[in-house]
Amino acid sequence: MSNTNKKTSRPMRGMRDILPLDMEIRQRVLSIIEDVYTRYGFVKIETPAVERIDLLNSGEGGDNEKQMFRLLKRGISIDDIEKMSSMSELVDGGLRFDLTIPLARYFANNQAKLFLPFKTFQIANVWRAERPQKGRYRQFIQCDIDIIGDKTEFAEKELILATTEALTKIGFIGFKIRINDRRILKGIVECSGYDQSEFDSVFIIIDKLDKIGFDGIESELKKKFSNNEANTKLVILLRQMNNLSKSDNIFQLLPKNVDLSVISKLKEIIEFIKIQSSGNYQIVFDPTLVRGMGYYTGPIFEIMDSDFPSSIAGGGRYDKMISKYIGKDVSACGFSIGFERIISLLVNRNLLTPNNIEKKVLIFDSANVNMDFALKKADELRKKDLVICVQKRRKNTKKQLSELLAFGYSSFCLIQSQSGLDELQFKPLR
Amino acid sequence: MSNTNKKTSRPMRGMRDILPLDMEIRQRVLSIIEDVYTRYGFVKIETPAVERIDLLNSGEGGDNEKQMFRLLKRGISIDDIEKMSSMSELVDGGLRFDLTIPLARYFANNQAKLFLPFKTFQIANVWRAERPQKGRYRQFIQCDIDIIGDKTEFAEKELILATTEALTKIGFIGFKIRINDRRILKGIVECSGYDQSEFDSVFIIIDKLDKIGFDGIESELKKKFSNNEANTKLVILLRQMNNLSKSDNIFQLLPKNVDLSVISKLKEIIEFIKIQSSGNYQIVFDPTLVRGMGYYTGPIFEIMDSDFPSSIAGGGRYDKMISKYIGKDVSACGFSIGFERIISLLVNRNLLTPNNIEKKVLIFDSANVNMDFALKKADELRKKDLVICVQKRRKNTKKQLSELLAFGYSSFCLIQSQSGLDELQFKPLR
Repeated sequence: MSNTNKKTSRPMRGMRDILPLDMEIRQRVLSIIEDVYTRYGFVKIETPAVERIDLLNSGEGGDNEKQMFRLLKRGISIDDIEKMSSMSELVDGGLRFDLTIPLARYFANNQAKLFLPFKTFQIANVWRAERPQKGRYRQFIQCDIDIIGDKTEFAEKELILATTEALTKIGFIGFKIRINDRRILKGIVECSGYDQSEFDSVFIIIDKLDKIGFDGIESELKKKFSNNEANTKLVILLRQMNNLSKSDNIFQLLPKNVDLSVISKLKEIIEFIKIQSSGNYQIVFDPTLVRGMGYYTGPIFEIMDSDFPSSIAGGGRYDKMISKYIGKDVSACGFSIGFERIISLLVNRNLLTPNNIEKKVLIFDSANVNMDFALKKADELRKKDLVICVQKRRKNTKKQLSELLAFGYSSFCLIQSQSGLDELQFKPLR
Repeated sequence: MSNTNKKTSRPMRGMRDILPLDMEIRQRVLSIIEDVYTRYGFVKIETPAVERIDLLNSGEGGDNEKQMFRLLKRGISIDDIEKMSSMSELVDGGLRFDLTIPLARYFANNQAKLFLPFKTFQIANVWRAERPQKGRYRQFIQCDIDIIGDKTEFAEKELILATTEALTKIGFIGFKIRINDRRILKGIVECSGYDQSEFDSVFIIIDKLDKIGFDGIESELKKKFSNNEANTKLVILLRQMNNLSKSDNIFQLLPKNVDLSVISKLKEIIEFIKIQSSGNYQIVFDPTLVRGMGYYTGPIFEIMDSDFPSSIAGGGRYDKMISKYIGKDVSACGFSIGFERIISLLVNRNLLTPNNIEKKVLIFDSANVNMDFALKKADELRKKDLVICVQKRRKNTKKQLSELLAFGYSSFCLIQSQSGLDELQFKPLR
């Protein structure tokens, strides 16, 4: 067969194949996360990858909606599309771009079979057609925990405890939790002199602080808003707060229009997490923290690792989203681990928990040993809870052994004859 | 909020939400399958859910291609589609409908980083827009194992051993493996008098035997083919073979144009599996077994459970598929467990392995007990490797406890005060 006849074997643009050793790392990390969440009493659920287009286009998804993979209705041909006058004739579904919107729909759809507070987690792929770049893919895993039906800060505390315990067990130390409350952010923007209708646009600009700094924010505000008094007042206040390192001092700078109960609840969360952290990680109040999504209503938080430019986990309270499906307010709070980011950090740092399952290989010389004999021997060995791979001996046995070592096998046994075998002796591969 | 303002919370047509208790069952079964495959030395891999449309439309997918979910190219608007003259301008990808075609692409794409024989497994969702019906969904999990690069029957034997061990560990007994070889099927059809160009159409008709019986097959053959001598000869031969219960006797009826080495290899597989089964399951030669897909080239097999009308697992050898991507022949053989089918059988039979993780719940009376105190106590308990859910005491504590029992919790501890607590006493929920 000539090369020109070969089909291309590349995955679709922005998609990737996961190789066996990468898969092993991912599985190990996922099982730690899953174990921690399960032990906290969170239950795993699953929603379909495909959702109705109206759910995904509801506006809750923000910019992610623009990056959605949309699905053609079934049975449509090229002749049909000529007559179409709207996208809704062509498209009826899409791939989910996050796990929060599907969770809200799930809770509404199944509430009769669930009970409150509903503590749940999801580990699943989401799809976003972002511009492909190194280390960023259009399909990636998110790990979300959520508590639905608890309006107190008990939810925030438990979500932060479970997420930090998972990160710690995976091997992260010294990370920093930034925490804020959307109502504090609103208070700051309001007292600076902006109109309520301008809040969301101001938030979007503040959210860029990490990238463009205070000067950048000031110039963007001036471009967008004519009220220069407000622009100046806001930037001065943000700069002042940013200069303080202690959360307590920053709290004292907060404008009077921020509800005192909001501040005291946030302080309570911070104090509790500080104690529980035992100094292994930090938690700081950061009044400039925005978190992108528009649906947040209360405390918001994210986790920063010093080696990564953006957050490795993020979440917050979203008390108004589920009401859109259920007809009554149901409070909700969630925390999501950026799984792909932590994997890339772990790989870069070689910070992986050791695999404690010993992998052995049984190699038989097919010239002298019957394959059934080898298969039976392997079967006997596996009864002792071992990973046993059976392989035929290849001509280049040395290369065979080095490949096995590269694939994580630790020892081998070469069977060259069926007789005189009392017990199989394994030798280290290295 | 009025009911008319509520958004619908149903999943998309043919899709489903997985509830927590169903999820637990699924996870337990998946972990058994994964454990068995891993201990046999199969490595887990993952391909993207989305593949290029030309890969999925290659013809290898048979009828599944018609049921594909196709993806709109990004950035297309209603104004763009007016000018389009072919589907390839509109669509560039689709959701995979099986795991075999993506595996062939994966192997070709990554062969430099893999070694032969490549023993691999995949546990992943596939999507098919079948007509929705009870118990059938448009997204479902497949569990595939494959061995690439072994042309001997070692591959078939190992695949059958691993799959039967997984099914046995899950709780299945007394199932039946039907086995055949595509070359035997070809020999039978050829010697009946059909032309090579007609083989595939004849196979499709024979494949319906379970549903329409021999009379149905005869009438379909007569409708399709004018060569009545061939039609009659084929049906007589199939009936004769079907009347025999012993594999050995059926082998003797096989026409002379079937290669003797094909028959002897098949016999060898059957004999070996019979011994290894220890009578826990059966293996029988069935010359009427077709297996739908066109890509099979050698042995084919499927597993029947007496309570299920179609197979619960199926597979075979497909030595020609990978060559389309790689430019040279690479032999391959696979076996796929119909995960959704075995789950429905397990649930119907109540044949589930017990969950051996004890789930406990700590309930605190928030009037007298600080939430931080309860969270800390739970944290201490979890260090002993327990599942501990913390909940606030609800007014209707009795209902709270019965819900916890329904969700799989076995015992609870009610903390009503922070003092005088030396050790927490758990009581059974039931």
